[in-house]
Amino acid sequence: MAVYTHLASEDLAALIAAYDVGELVSAKGIAEGVSNSNWLVETSGRNGAGARFILTMYEKRTDPGELPFFLGLLDHLAAKGCAVPATLHDRDGAAFRRHNGKALALIEYLPGISPDAPSAAQAHAVGAALARVHLAANDFDRTRANDLNMRACLAILDRCSEERLAGIDPELPQWLGAARDLVARWPQDLPRSIIHSDLFPDNVLMRGARVTGLIDFYFACHDMMAYDLAVTHAAWCFDRSGLGFAPEIGEALVSGYQSVRPLEPGEREALPRLAQGACLRFTASRAQDWLDTPADALVTRKDPMDFTRRWKFYAENGNRVFA
Amino acid sequence: MAVYTHLASEDLAALIAAYDVGELVSAKGIAEGVSNSNWLVETSGRNGAGARFILTMYEKRTDPGELPFFLGLLDHLAAKGCAVPATLHDRDGAAFRRHNGKALALIEYLPGISPDAPSAAQAHAVGAALARVHLAANDFDRTRANDLNMRACLAILDRCSEERLAGIDPELPQWLGAARDLVARWPQDLPRSIIHSDLFPDNVLMRGARVTGLIDFYFACHDMMAYDLAVTHAAWCFDRSGLGFAPEIGEALVSGYQSVRPLEPGEREALPRLAQGACLRFTASRAQDWLDTPADALVTRKDPMDFTRRWKFYAENGNRVFA
Repeated sequence: MAVYTHLASEDLAALIAAYDVGELVSAKGIAEGVSNSNWLVETSGRNGAGARFILTMYEKRTDPGELPFFLGLLDHLAAKGCAVPATLHDRDGAAFRRHNGKALALIEYLPGISPDAPSAAQAHAVGAALARVHLAANDFDRTRANDLNMRACLAILDRCSEERLAGIDPELPQWLGAARDLVARWPQDLPRSIIHSDLFPDNVLMRGARVTGLIDFYFACHDMMAYDLAVTHAAWCFDRSGLGFAPEIGEALVSGYQSVRPLEPGEREALPRLAQGACLRFTASRAQDWLDTPADALVTRKDPMDFTRRWKFYAENGNRVFA
Repeated sequence: MAVYTHLASEDLAALIAAYDVGELVSAKGIAEGVSNSNWLVETSGRNGAGARFILTMYEKRTDPGELPFFLGLLDHLAAKGCAVPATLHDRDGAAFRRHNGKALALIEYLPGISPDAPSAAQAHAVGAALARVHLAANDFDRTRANDLNMRACLAILDRCSEERLAGIDPELPQWLGAARDLVARWPQDLPRSIIHSDLFPDNVLMRGARVTGLIDFYFACHDMMAYDLAVTHAAWCFDRSGLGFAPEIGEALVSGYQSVRPLEPGEREALPRLAQGACLRFTASRAQDWLDTPADALVTRKDPMDFTRRWKFYAENGNRVFA
């Protein structure tokens, strides 16, 4: 949530000159994204009428070797009419450049703001947009494994050790046993595509009830489409702490999804487990970050228990919620 | 250099609706300013053609009681044609609003980028823009004392204690004696106006050699105009560490200033001392921040010695540099 690297304005101007987008007019570092540096860049535009872009510098969490997948996916989806930002290519046709050893990409700027308290109409639109991505991504010619799959998440928690997990919350070690049971009966044969896998409200731009942009595809991977819907459900239908569930948001999200891509019976039946799996995924990554981040650091640690609370909700109510 | 407060998008939309600027289209938290939260806001504009603004939320370092001075000054200078952003007033005519106990202002967005390695032509333009501000501010009907005047800076250093100053650098306590000598012979009778008093390159937006905006007037106060030129000289003519001096930048800055407002002989004669005073001011505030900020904090502490090095340069070369 910061700009990690200083980019001298002279270097920025030279970088922009490598693209056919007019000359640099303005650049503001923006507090967006979790692990990369981003600038909102304005240029004079190809026709002088002005144009805006997001310039992303990939910091250590993003492997530049994966950029052809991430950026190619954006171009593939944008070309098919999905509300995602396309990548600008430089005058030599490259989708990303390097500066002082770091990769940089210039990405289309999309209007819209991320809802903090989404309405049912907004959730419906997000469900539909997600389904469109799943359908459009199906023939994308690159692939990427889900490195935060269920076994990887269990491995993360195992590496944290039961003692340290208990330090976060005494209930966590016991919960880990239930998580193992879930992974043992994790569905394997549901339809797959490229999925976003991190579609929190932060990663959706909207104007009113219209989706203007799905962004931050840096966890995109090949996995079960219904799992992505379950991730989005867990991300959209609760208050931050995971206590208050909003049934009308959940219903609108699933109904919006099905308005574009109806779920198969097996997917629908699996949704409660998939939603628990989504909670396992975020509990694992947050527990790792929690234990890796000093308590007095200035960055805010996200509470892993926000998602174990959601897990509990799905364990108790999943069949009813997704009936 | 961050967004300190989360502003829900729904609250942001309601806030923007209080102004006659069209409806909210986009808002990005920007990494700008040292102590306030800022967003780059896009709206549909009064005529639907789109408009952009900076929304500033004043955090603890800015006293809301001083906003009528700071924001009124921007309006006064903008009305006189200075390259500063004007303040938008809400539908009730107010220059700032309150949200959850914090003051917020909507400020004109200006294009341009801050130079990292300014050219002489850029320094000339900045000098001229500064002189225009001094002339235009002269009949502004509000005033504000310089709470970082020389005696206040000495008091800050005294509160740090010699022992702790020596912990920053063994030379600092002895230097403090020389600083006291300077303050004892500090000029009192030079022409005054409202001055910016913090015009680092970060606070200047430019396109090529044209100044498109002077920003961040939150240290503006009533003081000697030549002191402001000396602050700007100390801020623009050295590399970051204060070792390398660029004489052509300094000459262009002073010559640009004089192209709009020729210095009086007494001002010119005082410039070496005023420049040392500028170095005292930044040494003092940085020493305080240095001692107040834990060494392992994630915010970068600025080295106070960067400005004691500049002090030394002016002590040895000031008469020659400003001849």
